[in-house]
Amino acid sequence: MTLESILSSITNTNGKFAEQAQNRLDSLTKPQGSLGRLEEFAKQLVAITENPMPSLNKKAVFTFAGDHGVADEGVSAFPKAVTQQMVFNFINGGAGINVLARHAGADVVVVDIGVDGDLGNIKSDAFVSRKVISGTMNMRKGPAMTREETLKCIAVGVELADEYVKKGYKIFATGEMGIANTTPSSAITAVMTGKTVEEITGKGTGINDEAWKHKVQVIKDAISFNMPDPADPVDVLAKVGGAEIGGIAGLIIGAAANKVPIVIDGFISTAGALIAYMIEPKTKGYMFAAHNSQEAGHKALLEKIGLRPILDLDLRLGEGTGAALAMLMIEGGLKIYKEMATFAEASVSGKE
Amino acid sequence: MTLESILSSITNTNGKFAEQAQNRLDSLTKPQGSLGRLEEFAKQLVAITENPMPSLNKKAVFTFAGDHGVADEGVSAFPKAVTQQMVFNFINGGAGINVLARHAGADVVVVDIGVDGDLGNIKSDAFVSRKVISGTMNMRKGPAMTREETLKCIAVGVELADEYVKKGYKIFATGEMGIANTTPSSAITAVMTGKTVEEITGKGTGINDEAWKHKVQVIKDAISFNMPDPADPVDVLAKVGGAEIGGIAGLIIGAAANKVPIVIDGFISTAGALIAYMIEPKTKGYMFAAHNSQEAGHKALLEKIGLRPILDLDLRLGEGTGAALAMLMIEGGLKIYKEMATFAEASVSGKE
Repeated sequence: MTLESILSSITNTNGKFAEQAQNRLDSLTKPQGSLGRLEEFAKQLVAITENPMPSLNKKAVFTFAGDHGVADEGVSAFPKAVTQQMVFNFINGGAGINVLARHAGADVVVVDIGVDGDLGNIKSDAFVSRKVISGTMNMRKGPAMTREETLKCIAVGVELADEYVKKGYKIFATGEMGIANTTPSSAITAVMTGKTVEEITGKGTGINDEAWKHKVQVIKDAISFNMPDPADPVDVLAKVGGAEIGGIAGLIIGAAANKVPIVIDGFISTAGALIAYMIEPKTKGYMFAAHNSQEAGHKALLEKIGLRPILDLDLRLGEGTGAALAMLMIEGGLKIYKEMATFAEASVSGKE
Repeated sequence: MTLESILSSITNTNGKFAEQAQNRLDSLTKPQGSLGRLEEFAKQLVAITENPMPSLNKKAVFTFAGDHGVADEGVSAFPKAVTQQMVFNFINGGAGINVLARHAGADVVVVDIGVDGDLGNIKSDAFVSRKVISGTMNMRKGPAMTREETLKCIAVGVELADEYVKKGYKIFATGEMGIANTTPSSAITAVMTGKTVEEITGKGTGINDEAWKHKVQVIKDAISFNMPDPADPVDVLAKVGGAEIGGIAGLIIGAAANKVPIVIDGFISTAGALIAYMIEPKTKGYMFAAHNSQEAGHKALLEKIGLRPILDLDLRLGEGTGAALAMLMIEGGLKIYKEMATFAEASVSGKE
């Protein structure tokens, strides 16, 4: 299937199913609307899946790993080798995302889509190798990726969505690992929201004020050198993006095409979500914004898409950690919808 | 034990343990502080329990049920009989709190502390009968409870804390059911925060504008008739409070005395928390504020105690529903602290 045919298969979520879900919600033993956003989550799940009694019994968090040539500019507090080291930490179950995915009853799928270096022959259900590039090029000196590589990254995400739907997964979450990847995410945010680089650039994993100023300059240089076209999301992703951001955009497109809900993690994931949304706005109905990240540019991305985050816990780790936690809230909403007694069943009087 | 001796046994949470927890958090494979409030939750749990590796394996949500004489004034959208009907819904597992407590792995304990009417001989692990009164008196016409009844309600909460600690429970949450109980909660809020009644009175389960104006007048009448002393929290609770609010205050005091963390649900629960806090400010360190309720007065209560809510999901159901969901976030924080690999264990490089 070409990307065009996949995109044309994406529909708006189903309002009739949402209405049906609302009727059930209003029959349950609680004042109408008193479970607030939990009720909205249930309604959205029914509208997405077109199933009056959806299930979320298999959940996957996709943690896309990729390296960034721009790390050579000294924009991160951590050395580039950490991307690879963390991939092994994910596979061994010791990272934040492993702990929180277990807590949420979700499986972690680590995807090597752009790690710089040979990871060897890894045999693990938690790992898939779909390497498109060995790290991006340094975007301060030229485009991060070619257009062809970029489309391949998107295709990887779309294909993974198809594969994991076939494996029985009912809900996806996005996550990522890539030293320096707040830098391309800020570049994407600046280009696509029109905000200044200063406004939407944060301190990533923890750089100091001086390094932050340098990071801002690097992002400005990358944008003025590459001149990405804000009206062409694939061009933006190619010139100032990254492989894992492309994979996330593709996963979202694939989820929407399969009528599967997808939970968007923090800043970097939402940069991928904005790319997906600009490619096909109908994808928005399939998205849940997990949380309000501490990274400066995240709010601008959420506003641009028009998503309200579920959690606000001062997180800034990425990996999919906020998305795993948000899955617990979304599932709570679904359980309310499916498991609560109605006024009639429980012989409880209604409003006077 | 007298209330005085219990209160004098409450200590501040342990800063040395908090420091020890911080050291471990900073050794885990993530940028320092990048898991935000999750890290704070873990630290607070260690400081509360004085245990470097605490466990939350047994959790209880206490849903205190009580009726209110002021319901006769037409301040609620639902008839008074719903309090009893909902008690049976709780026992049968069909209410919102049942669904969300199951989701959080917590047991529900329904406490009849002040229901108006004989509930019969209920045999259920999910129910305890500790009836102090059969509903409060109508506070528009006189004090809701006597001082003696009020102290008994607090004692019920303290005793339940002791009992459930002995049963092996490691974390408590508060919840309540009581038709009309936003009315006494607003009265407590007005008296103890100094805000106007209009500012802190909401629409409860869903009254219209006209009924809201009437509710405001009823609260004003109750306050001016009873003249509760803001410096005496037991007096406020007696004159314009309710049995379930007293039970919640007592449970919090008992939790603090036992060094057990306690999650405070929404508006009514936080009215109970403010009573506990005004009786003994050291109880604050044992509290987690579950969520930011839709009820107008909740924010004023949280600010008065100085608590930042964990969730913001537009909830306004009560029962303990927000607290059950917040337990999942708190437990997520603890799992991060206990289960993540350190930089050394995972051979991941630190900051450059």
